[in-house]
Amino acid sequence: MIKTVGIISRPRREDVALVVPPLVNWLQAHGADVVCDSETSDCIQPLAAQTRKREDIPGSTDLLIVLGGDGTLLSAARLAAERKVPILAVNLGGLGFLTTVPQDEIYSILEELFSGLHRVSERVMLDAEIVRAGTVIRRQIALNDAVLNKAALARIMDLELRVDGEYVTTYKSDGLIISTPTGSTAYSLAAGGPIVYPSVEAFVVAPICPHTLTNRPIVIPDSATIEIDFKAEDDAVFLTLDGQIGIELVRGDHIRVRKAMNKLMLVRPAKKTYYQILRSKLKWGER
Amino acid sequence: MIKTVGIISRPRREDVALVVPPLVNWLQAHGADVVCDSETSDCIQPLAAQTRKREDIPGSTDLLIVLGGDGTLLSAARLAAERKVPILAVNLGGLGFLTTVPQDEIYSILEELFSGLHRVSERVMLDAEIVRAGTVIRRQIALNDAVLNKAALARIMDLELRVDGEYVTTYKSDGLIISTPTGSTAYSLAAGGPIVYPSVEAFVVAPICPHTLTNRPIVIPDSATIEIDFKAEDDAVFLTLDGQIGIELVRGDHIRVRKAMNKLMLVRPAKKTYYQILRSKLKWGER
Amino acid sequence: MIKTVGIISRPRREDVALVVPPLVNWLQAHGADVVCDSETSDCIQPLAAQTRKREDIPGSTDLLIVLGGDGTLLSAARLAAERKVPILAVNLGGLGFLTTVPQDEIYSILEELFSGLHRVSERVMLDAEIVRAGTVIRRQIALNDAVLNKAALARIMDLELRVDGEYVTTYKSDGLIISTPTGSTAYSLAAGGPIVYPSVEAFVVAPICPHTLTNRPIVIPDSATIEIDFKAEDDAVFLTLDGQIGIELVRGDHIRVRKAMNKLMLVRPAKKTYYQILRSKLKWGER
Amino acid sequence: MIKTVGIISRPRREDVALVVPPLVNWLQAHGADVVCDSETSDCIQPLAAQTRKREDIPGSTDLLIVLGGDGTLLSAARLAAERKVPILAVNLGGLGFLTTVPQDEIYSILEELFSGLHRVSERVMLDAEIVRAGTVIRRQIALNDAVLNKAALARIMDLELRVDGEYVTTYKSDGLIISTPTGSTAYSLAAGGPIVYPSVEAFVVAPICPHTLTNRPIVIPDSATIEIDFKAEDDAVFLTLDGQIGIELVRGDHIRVRKAMNKLMLVRPAKKTYYQILRSKLKWGER
Repeated sequence: MIKTVGIISRPRREDVALVVPPLVNWLQAHGADVVCDSETSDCIQPLAAQTRKREDIPGSTDLLIVLGGDGTLLSAARLAAERKVPILAVNLGGLGFLTTVPQDEIYSILEELFSGLHRVSERVMLDAEIVRAGTVIRRQIALNDAVLNKAALARIMDLELRVDGEYVTTYKSDGLIISTPTGSTAYSLAAGGPIVYPSVEAFVVAPICPHTLTNRPIVIPDSATIEIDFKAEDDAVFLTLDGQIGIELVRGDHIRVRKAMNKLMLVRPAKKTYYQILRSKLKWGER
Repeated sequence: MIKTVGIISRPRREDVALVVPPLVNWLQAHGADVVCDSETSDCIQPLAAQTRKREDIPGSTDLLIVLGGDGTLLSAARLAAERKVPILAVNLGGLGFLTTVPQDEIYSILEELFSGLHRVSERVMLDAEIVRAGTVIRRQIALNDAVLNKAALARIMDLELRVDGEYVTTYKSDGLIISTPTGSTAYSLAAGGPIVYPSVEAFVVAPICPHTLTNRPIVIPDSATIEIDFKAEDDAVFLTLDGQIGIELVRGDHIRVRKAMNKLMLVRPAKKTYYQILRSKLKWGER
Repeated sequence: MIKTVGIISRPRREDVALVVPPLVNWLQAHGADVVCDSETSDCIQPLAAQTRKREDIPGSTDLLIVLGGDGTLLSAARLAAERKVPILAVNLGGLGFLTTVPQDEIYSILEELFSGLHRVSERVMLDAEIVRAGTVIRRQIALNDAVLNKAALARIMDLELRVDGEYVTTYKSDGLIISTPTGSTAYSLAAGGPIVYPSVEAFVVAPICPHTLTNRPIVIPDSATIEIDFKAEDDAVFLTLDGQIGIELVRGDHIRVRKAMNKLMLVRPAKKTYYQILRSKLKWGER
Repeated sequence: MIKTVGIISRPRREDVALVVPPLVNWLQAHGADVVCDSETSDCIQPLAAQTRKREDIPGSTDLLIVLGGDGTLLSAARLAAERKVPILAVNLGGLGFLTTVPQDEIYSILEELFSGLHRVSERVMLDAEIVRAGTVIRRQIALNDAVLNKAALARIMDLELRVDGEYVTTYKSDGLIISTPTGSTAYSLAAGGPIVYPSVEAFVVAPICPHTLTNRPIVIPDSATIEIDFKAEDDAVFLTLDGQIGIELVRGDHIRVRKAMNKLMLVRPAKKTYYQILRSKLKWGER
């Protein structure tokens, strides 16, 4: 049963002020408590809901409504997944690969959700660890990808890849992308990776501008443990999660990527399928 | 228990005459009956084993030894899979992606197999059907791929793809490849597809020279039913399985590809892993 | 001075009947004789102009007006180039890379041409020869490309490339494309070739689905003599020019491609530049 | 006539100490003065030649001998080109695309050069300018490429390309490479660009991981003026020349790339042609 609903919004979006007040009314009328992040409450005053820090919201809610684009969703997904809170991602302007629910479907989908119906696409997330001197110094989950890349002015680097303990290859490249199926249509695609249907249980490992032309993207089981060691100039390598969280690495750091324990539960739109979104976003010619 | 062993050889390979006689001796000394295809017996006279037509061999054997290259194996695989006979694929010259057991490992692996040990890599095969006027007129399994392509002098064709009944896109291209993970390092790779680790439960759908540059390879669950309709000039479209079996299609034919019921059981070499073979075949620089 | 104008049309286009009569009137009123191909006169009866076989038209005209799409233009270009007749290529429906003059610019451009103004883009064509047993048995020019490819059911073939007598490499592939800059946005692009600005004095050599992943497209000077030998199954190799003229080759045939002696003179539209057409056709996002 | 010869060496290469003393003897015996950079004299003591700062060497020499790999050559080329000094690039270990003269050919080639014979491959260089607030604040030539890219942690950027004043497109990408034919086998190739034969009068413009999949590499005449404006986060964009000179840009900077006034004169090896080097470096299968 849905008792508390969180709302997370893209900062400074004008339409948030239009969408949120009736949404809060509807939710309260249906017996739910509503909590918003400050990005939301900054857009609307007065707001008949509590405001909390974004990172505290998923912990106390049964449903998370995200208003914005894919960037806002990625941020919310990393917070929601560990709490197993389903996300209803409403698109404000533009078309997202992830924020696929259009505004005019909000209430029909909420009706379903409040009556106990589920229309959820489960998405595997990845869990990246930085091991320094034998100790995990940082752990971070991500919905799209973990990217190891070099500083703009640094030379090409050596990236040694191991899968389940077995040596795979050493890339000489600008970097390496470990992508979930969800992330396969993001950065990995720009680097030459394939599109992977969300339910395929696999990760894509795609090198960025590889020096060895035969170093093509590889699709490996998502049950694998992926490990990366690198050799590069000092202070010149970074790990980026979902293109949003950047961490500077130091010489000798070791990266380990695995499937995250929990999946993201993403409420699906009523009318758009994955392939329809693909066609729209990639501008495939229609029949 | 291994009672009968079949031997299938690449035609006109001189080293077959060197490898087979001691192999037959070893097998018989270990209590097994041996049957060979005529490609094998053509190389060795006299041969202390029965000769049968290649297609009749898997039906009556508990183990199939294939001597040759990937081409011979593909042919044997299509025969063996429906009978659930494991294949020991010995490489004669060159390095194959599939015939990965070197000659000097034959007897150590046979010792293992005869003592009941299993070192088998299961490979998904695909099952392709041609539907004409509502009736399945041809059904064929394949280990690597099913390829729909046009005649050399024909114009670019329209290929309409459906997955699980849902319309995906219409390719304007020279053709379309449906590949298993095993086939991902064959034709699909040449067409820009990713490398897929054998145990990933997925097919690759890769267009050949697509007119729409955003029509990138897609990786979909191998539980899917893939359907293709085409529009092309008359007498100009072909379905090819594993690059070996070619079938001329007619206007209105409908192609349906699914996972085959049985998997191929491929005996693995003792010393080479999948990633090692990949590195050798793709000439990835070593450490 | 423009004394005679030829009109060549795409067969069975309904709008030809609308465009041609006023066009013929305008041309005759400006003192020109008009000759049409039968594809044009088939659409309009009665037609106040002579009808001739398409291949006889360029020989006797000072300007060629092509009504249709890129296919019609390619066909006209091969006829016009040897006669040095400029082509005004009018687009009927859709957007072509080559037929870039929109209908509403016809008369303003004709005014310019009849007053002696030139707004012509010169396009290099290629000249392909088939040498059999030491003798040139066929010679054909083309505006876009010369493509060597294999039959749909044939195995991958070996293509040995020489440039100016020097051995370059042996492709194991489905075929090889030799493209002019004009053809670089056609088949070559689908095979992974670059876009080449029309005035760059170069050919693109692009393999189709190369087995060796490092066999990337090469851009070579258009002053070069390109020679190709192939090894393939019998009766399985074809040379195609502009995707329109197909020639079956036999074992031992040798292909030679050079720049054609004459360039095509293509009248440019007033308002569209090459980059604008590129953006429209390739659906590049606009500012 | 060759009166003074400069020697530039890769730092800390042991074989420099073996190659240089007899080379200096030979040059002096043939009447030439010899000047070395400090990287050379650091390897050999005592050295019977003057030492000067590397950047002062080309100004006073008639021939420049470069000992090392492609990195050393790129550095020497930027110094030599403005002075029109030919470079003899000797490979120490490994195979370079540019340092193609093997050690055992040094003296036969020097004999030729001292007797007035020329065996020179002319290579176009590019000239990149940074325009800030209407003023050229930095000008740098390069042999391989000028690369605009973003900081590792910065978001994807917008790069607006103009050619000869005309708007071409706006890339959403990690960066953009402007490459000479010489540079086409370096970074541009890793980013998906074509191989361009050295004498083709063209630049390659290749986006790095473009968001718009149809943004393919373009080959444009090297007579063009290429201009790039960018929109990115602050302090996050860099211009890199030949992968060696990095310049941090600021918001509003405008980049202009043209063909450099002088070409590099690169002494060619006796036995290796461009295509042979290509085959070796790219590991194309030989016949």
